[in-house]
Amino acid sequence: MRLSLESAPVPAPGPGEVIIQVEAAPINPSDLGLLLAGADVTAAVASGTEDRPVVTAPLPAAAARALRARVDQSLAVGNEGAGTVVAAGSSEAAQRLLGKLVAAAGGSMYSQYRCVDTMFCLELPDGATAAQGASSFVNPMTALGMIETLRLEGHTGLVHTAAASNLGQMLNRLCLEDDVPLVNIVRKQEQEDLLRAAGATYVCNSSAPTFMDDLTTALEASSATLAFDAIGGGKVGSQILTCMEAAASAASGTYSRYGSAVHKQLYIYGGLDRGPTELTRNYGMAWGIGGWLLTPFLQRIGLEGMIRLRDRVAAELTTTFASTYTREVSLAGALSLDAIADYARHATGSKYLIRPASA
Amino acid sequence: MRLSLESAPVPAPGPGEVIIQVEAAPINPSDLGLLLAGADVTAAVASGTEDRPVVTAPLPAAAARALRARVDQSLAVGNEGAGTVVAAGSSEAAQRLLGKLVAAAGGSMYSQYRCVDTMFCLELPDGATAAQGASSFVNPMTALGMIETLRLEGHTGLVHTAAASNLGQMLNRLCLEDDVPLVNIVRKQEQEDLLRAAGATYVCNSSAPTFMDDLTTALEASSATLAFDAIGGGKVGSQILTCMEAAASAASGTYSRYGSAVHKQLYIYGGLDRGPTELTRNYGMAWGIGGWLLTPFLQRIGLEGMIRLRDRVAAELTTTFASTYTREVSLAGALSLDAIADYARHATGSKYLIRPASA
Repeated sequence: MRLSLESAPVPAPGPGEVIIQVEAAPINPSDLGLLLAGADVTAAVASGTEDRPVVTAPLPAAAARALRARVDQSLAVGNEGAGTVVAAGSSEAAQRLLGKLVAAAGGSMYSQYRCVDTMFCLELPDGATAAQGASSFVNPMTALGMIETLRLEGHTGLVHTAAASNLGQMLNRLCLEDDVPLVNIVRKQEQEDLLRAAGATYVCNSSAPTFMDDLTTALEASSATLAFDAIGGGKVGSQILTCMEAAASAASGTYSRYGSAVHKQLYIYGGLDRGPTELTRNYGMAWGIGGWLLTPFLQRIGLEGMIRLRDRVAAELTTTFASTYTREVSLAGALSLDAIADYARHATGSKYLIRPASA
Repeated sequence: MRLSLESAPVPAPGPGEVIIQVEAAPINPSDLGLLLAGADVTAAVASGTEDRPVVTAPLPAAAARALRARVDQSLAVGNEGAGTVVAAGSSEAAQRLLGKLVAAAGGSMYSQYRCVDTMFCLELPDGATAAQGASSFVNPMTALGMIETLRLEGHTGLVHTAAASNLGQMLNRLCLEDDVPLVNIVRKQEQEDLLRAAGATYVCNSSAPTFMDDLTTALEASSATLAFDAIGGGKVGSQILTCMEAAASAASGTYSRYGSAVHKQLYIYGGLDRGPTELTRNYGMAWGIGGWLLTPFLQRIGLEGMIRLRDRVAAELTTTFASTYTREVSLAGALSLDAIADYARHATGSKYLIRPASA
């Protein structure tokens, strides 16, 4: 795995395109797959210059096999960001954005300038800064997507792991606004405190010896039968299904040979733990687990659904959908070994913002 | 866990019911959950008399917790069976069956006489024996249900594990008839030979050192993206998804950061291995795993769908849907410690038929 900064000409925008001078772009967990490719960053080696750092790191054998089709391709990174439109194509939609501050989910946003179709641009509300708009797509649309999925698939309550993340805090605010019962699962006392201070009703600490009982009680009270899991590896997904089954059995009060008939669904949308997922399958037969990804979800709800969600994000950008960052870095700074070691840890509460204009 | 034979009065049949003198009832894997309740049969103890044996066996802690709601309930066993109608209620449907040989999926079929609603009876075709009709519901409807699920969910090829079982051989015949590509996964050379002799196109032996490559090749050739797994525990389900992803990537030829967009689905319909399921999740984000059970499937296709499938079973009972048994036992014989030890092993190719009329 090789990381570097490259010079590239800025293209002339097509009729429906604009050139954004990128001022802020977050490092999301969903960027790290493309950026780090599962490489062993503890063995990363730096070379190059201060302005043009180069970092290489070895790929574990399993990652190397999965990435065969990617070898020797140079891929730009950065799902989203925000900045000022400094040039615009001839279309009315493009011209209207000239000089405006916009957020864009155009990919390749870890750049100083980026040519993006206006379809992927969101004009920021008056007074909002580029930093406030930088994360207006991935996390807000994912949180909204979870609630939409709940409604589409007929559930009435949600479970969320890594619930103290930026996304988790956003989801907590959304669920409170929309009256959707949400069971937050965290790993540390301070994360529990943070969510309770933000008004969360159900918070379960997976490090507590009483976790399984706490979770079952919260699931009985909330009737949550749909979980979104950011972790992926380990046992927590299976534990959630086990406790959902216990809650469903307690609610029905009768023994059923194949388990409860209540469908229990777990979606894995992240991979904070890349290790194997272990399922104990003591939750009857009415259960499902699957991958959940934003893009296919948006295809499922169609353009109108997507516009409806984006309008809500714009209206509540600095309230419900606010993000916080713990560290700001330049493009070169994002390739320093200590920064890589830090953001590769996926620590909840730690979040990087790249400032491409800074040196 | 306590097993025994009990005397019970035979009820008078209601208008739409018949009394069947049960002549043959199979011990299916789906019966063993109710019959043995996950007990440790290696520690089983026999008591009672030769005619009225009693067997007790301890429950592991996990099974005991899951079965809290079942404690102290005496539950009759036997999903299906066949026999002669010796009494019938007043309805035309019931009277029409008097003296006929019928199969029934009425539950509690490990009995000498059983009162069943005519809705659950299938009149056997001329010349068919009770032994031939005894397994006319669970396995045939499950095999047909797999192919129906393939069509309902938009797949074009199937994967099946424990593929040399009675059900697996049936599914192989069905898929050949219906031109559905089927990848059979077995664990032993003689199982591979058996399926190949029966005309199977794709057979992969999971004990072979080349298993993952063999499976990927078969999946590329068959385009199978839906798997039914009878095993449940271990890694085979995850291996199937891994190879499906490799086949899908090879077909598309391009690198996609989130894996292929082809949806890969695994249904676990049995638990030959009760141990944990281990998922390596190296198959992108477009995948799903879930429990699959016959009853909710039949509810999904409705009464008309079910009648269509049952008519096909009746027409092909002694050909496509033929079952074979390796041992016949009386009701008391089914509770002998050596028989229990044998059928509790779930060995592929070993299948018991209970003959309630024999002593």
